[in-house]
Amino acid sequence: MSPVVWLLGLSGTGKTTLALRLLESARAKGLRADLIDGDLVRDFFADRADYSRENRISNIQRIVFAALLLSRNDVLTIVSNISPYEETRRFARRKLPRYCEIYLKASLEDCARRDPKGLYRRAREGQNPGMIGVDAPFEEPRSPDLAVDTGRLSEDDSFAEILRFLGEKGLL
Amino acid sequence: MSPVVWLLGLSGTGKTTLALRLLESARAKGLRADLIDGDLVRDFFADRADYSRENRISNIQRIVFAALLLSRNDVLTIVSNISPYEETRRFARRKLPRYCEIYLKASLEDCARRDPKGLYRRAREGQNPGMIGVDAPFEEPRSPDLAVDTGRLSEDDSFAEILRFLGEKGLL
Repeated sequence: MSPVVWLLGLSGTGKTTLALRLLESARAKGLRADLIDGDLVRDFFADRADYSRENRISNIQRIVFAALLLSRNDVLTIVSNISPYEETRRFARRKLPRYCEIYLKASLEDCARRDPKGLYRRAREGQNPGMIGVDAPFEEPRSPDLAVDTGRLSEDDSFAEILRFLGEKGLL
Repeated sequence: MSPVVWLLGLSGTGKTTLALRLLESARAKGLRADLIDGDLVRDFFADRADYSRENRISNIQRIVFAALLLSRNDVLTIVSNISPYEETRRFARRKLPRYCEIYLKASLEDCARRDPKGLYRRAREGQNPGMIGVDAPFEEPRSPDLAVDTGRLSEDDSFAEILRFLGEKGLL
């Protein structure tokens, strides 16, 4: 079983950027690795419009199932997903033997200022109902394996912290 | 992208048996291969009891997503699932670049006589509502890549036919 490295946090905390760097780094080491991005799942199922709690949970469960299959076929699996609910994080930890949860932590203000996808702006304009952190709750992770303060650290420093952690744990 | 070989048909047509032989055969050739069995998905999501059309569709979509990820990581993926709906078979074909649909065809009478899991007996006793072929429809595949008459052929002959077909198509 290969590890499943799950990056979570609000939109704008740097999940996708750091996940892509991690993927590149794993492949550079000759490892088989893949990235499951939250948007990939939405696009696949063509339900981009529905950001209900129920649909988010369903999407995360789909990711967990796919991650288990990749993991058991020795593909190091990186997940990049907001994952706002403790319930689904517990589900992932229960189902995935080598689950590693990395919480990218930044204040809502910092995330909204960066706003790489323009989602916070759209939420302020009332065009993005159910936006996590704005009008839907983000449940702070209670027991991540690692929390990285991406609000304060540079992208390079955040990445170095993740790499160091995964190296220490023998995961990468 | 590796092929996704999808075995479908009523309960009792030999899906699991043939899928396991296929998996063994692929691995014996040194290929990376895995099997996604319908029951695995139900067990994973612990929703065994719900055999509604909606839940069946949702389960098949989960399988398609996981199969896509395995396939793009060069794992030959074998799926064993009743897959009673043309709609979801079209979904699988649309989403999976190397989808290969193999229909295991046997009469309801033959399947009910074999009844490896005792599901037909339980259905007759009213304990298995929604049983496909009994009180829920099985939509005959319109355009499988291969149909194998497992009602008439022996297990060995059915398997030989599948192997020959996959060999000819360069899939195994």
